[in-house]
Amino acid sequence: MSANTESLEIWAAARRDEIARVLDTRLAIPPEGDPGRLVEAMRYSLLAPGKRIRPLLGLAAAEAVGTVDDNVQVACAAVELVHCYSLVHDDLPAMDDDDFRRGRPSNHKVFGESVAILAGDALLTLAFEWIADAGLHSSRPEAYLRAAAALARGAGVLGMVRGQARDLCDPPPPTMAALETLHAEKTGALFRAALEVGGLAAGGSSDAVGSLTRFGAAYGIAFQHADDRDDAEHEAHAAEARARLETLVAQAAEAAAPFGVRGERLADIARALLR
Amino acid sequence: MSANTESLEIWAAARRDEIARVLDTRLAIPPEGDPGRLVEAMRYSLLAPGKRIRPLLGLAAAEAVGTVDDNVQVACAAVELVHCYSLVHDDLPAMDDDDFRRGRPSNHKVFGESVAILAGDALLTLAFEWIADAGLHSSRPEAYLRAAAALARGAGVLGMVRGQARDLCDPPPPTMAALETLHAEKTGALFRAALEVGGLAAGGSSDAVGSLTRFGAAYGIAFQHADDRDDAEHEAHAAEARARLETLVAQAAEAAAPFGVRGERLADIARALLR
Repeated sequence: MSANTESLEIWAAARRDEIARVLDTRLAIPPEGDPGRLVEAMRYSLLAPGKRIRPLLGLAAAEAVGTVDDNVQVACAAVELVHCYSLVHDDLPAMDDDDFRRGRPSNHKVFGESVAILAGDALLTLAFEWIADAGLHSSRPEAYLRAAAALARGAGVLGMVRGQARDLCDPPPPTMAALETLHAEKTGALFRAALEVGGLAAGGSSDAVGSLTRFGAAYGIAFQHADDRDDAEHEAHAAEARARLETLVAQAAEAAAPFGVRGERLADIARALLR
Repeated sequence: MSANTESLEIWAAARRDEIARVLDTRLAIPPEGDPGRLVEAMRYSLLAPGKRIRPLLGLAAAEAVGTVDDNVQVACAAVELVHCYSLVHDDLPAMDDDDFRRGRPSNHKVFGESVAILAGDALLTLAFEWIADAGLHSSRPEAYLRAAAALARGAGVLGMVRGQARDLCDPPPPTMAALETLHAEKTGALFRAALEVGGLAAGGSSDAVGSLTRFGAAYGIAFQHADDRDDAEHEAHAAEARARLETLVAQAAEAAAPFGVRGERLADIARALLR
């Protein structure tokens, strides 16, 4: 294990604990009751052990351009709410129909389909409430408004949801370019938004956020190539995907270069995809 | 027909046309394609003829405190996106399982369940993108951030979605007070948010927005009592509900009183519930 790997893992574990604490304390069961076990259902999926890669990337982006305070943490945690909602809705019978998620019964298997739909809706809505609230507590509300716009764009009709619609309804992508279009929408758009949210919340300049956006765009597609590595379905493209993964990781590292030593965490996170 | 009624109807018809134009032009089929007919599905439900009561209330709130510009219009139209998403998800087989909505096949009957779920998700997400974009084009980004927070709170886990979870999972409310709690969550919270969004976007002071919030809270419950009037299910409470409707309309009109002549539109809208 290189010094860099060790340091990344120690950093990530500490940040993961912070994010888990934000999620746990900010989404408590309402003392006045929890009709339909709605909040319990939200917490069931949100607090399941996870890598929290999106908030970690947001925090690394924030560290590259400024400092992380409570408001930045909340904004980065909001990206995890969006990711979590997308998993809950993806697992529904009408979608991927998955009975298990990370080894536990999926949300609708435990709480029923209707509550799982509502829990996803509420998680998505809560993401924007958290970003807005964080911005109203911050000294730069306009930057948080920009972060909310970036998150909505990444998650929405031209981003993640478009990718899900394409994946569900279109034939499998016939070329690497078509596959990467799907990856960019379905996975990349939210990663990119995570970088923008972190960078904007921490006060990054427009140039800095531009670099973070480029990092996120490259990282998002690279992440999906790395994720697909052991997936038989994608064997046809395996050699090509490996080459693209290396190219994209190099592009991501390059996008982090303008931040100098403060961008090394981001570059490390990208390079970790090669292992 | 009184002069007031006529004037309200003329005003509402003109505002409805403006809102329809905003919805139609801002949610166009992407020129680069529409995988899964996602945007077509969103437009199918969004552009169906409707009363547009929530954006109308937002606009009336804006007129009570300031002037309506393009950004205010977009923010008020965003509330309709949230209302529309809630209808699309409510009609799903796992929820109310309604095959028809306003006399037309419901979204999932035309586009399939998976696309209907995604169309709802994308409509909700788009609401926050519109509010954020409008705020970034405005001279008061902080007020739009506050509007985004209000919309998320009204739509979310302690507002509309909580009401839907309660309605789906709890036994029917046994008392008028319990019924009104359900109304306040399921219907009232989004009405209230519509008022807040319009008032905040148009630059209303904190006092003014407080009055608008009180108007919205009373109006929302009154609206549901009026809506239930002909519903056999609620006959047990009919006389009590009629009395409450009158009380709540009076409370709403009173909340609009501080705006003087500029608040008369709001009071007219509330009194229209009595007809």
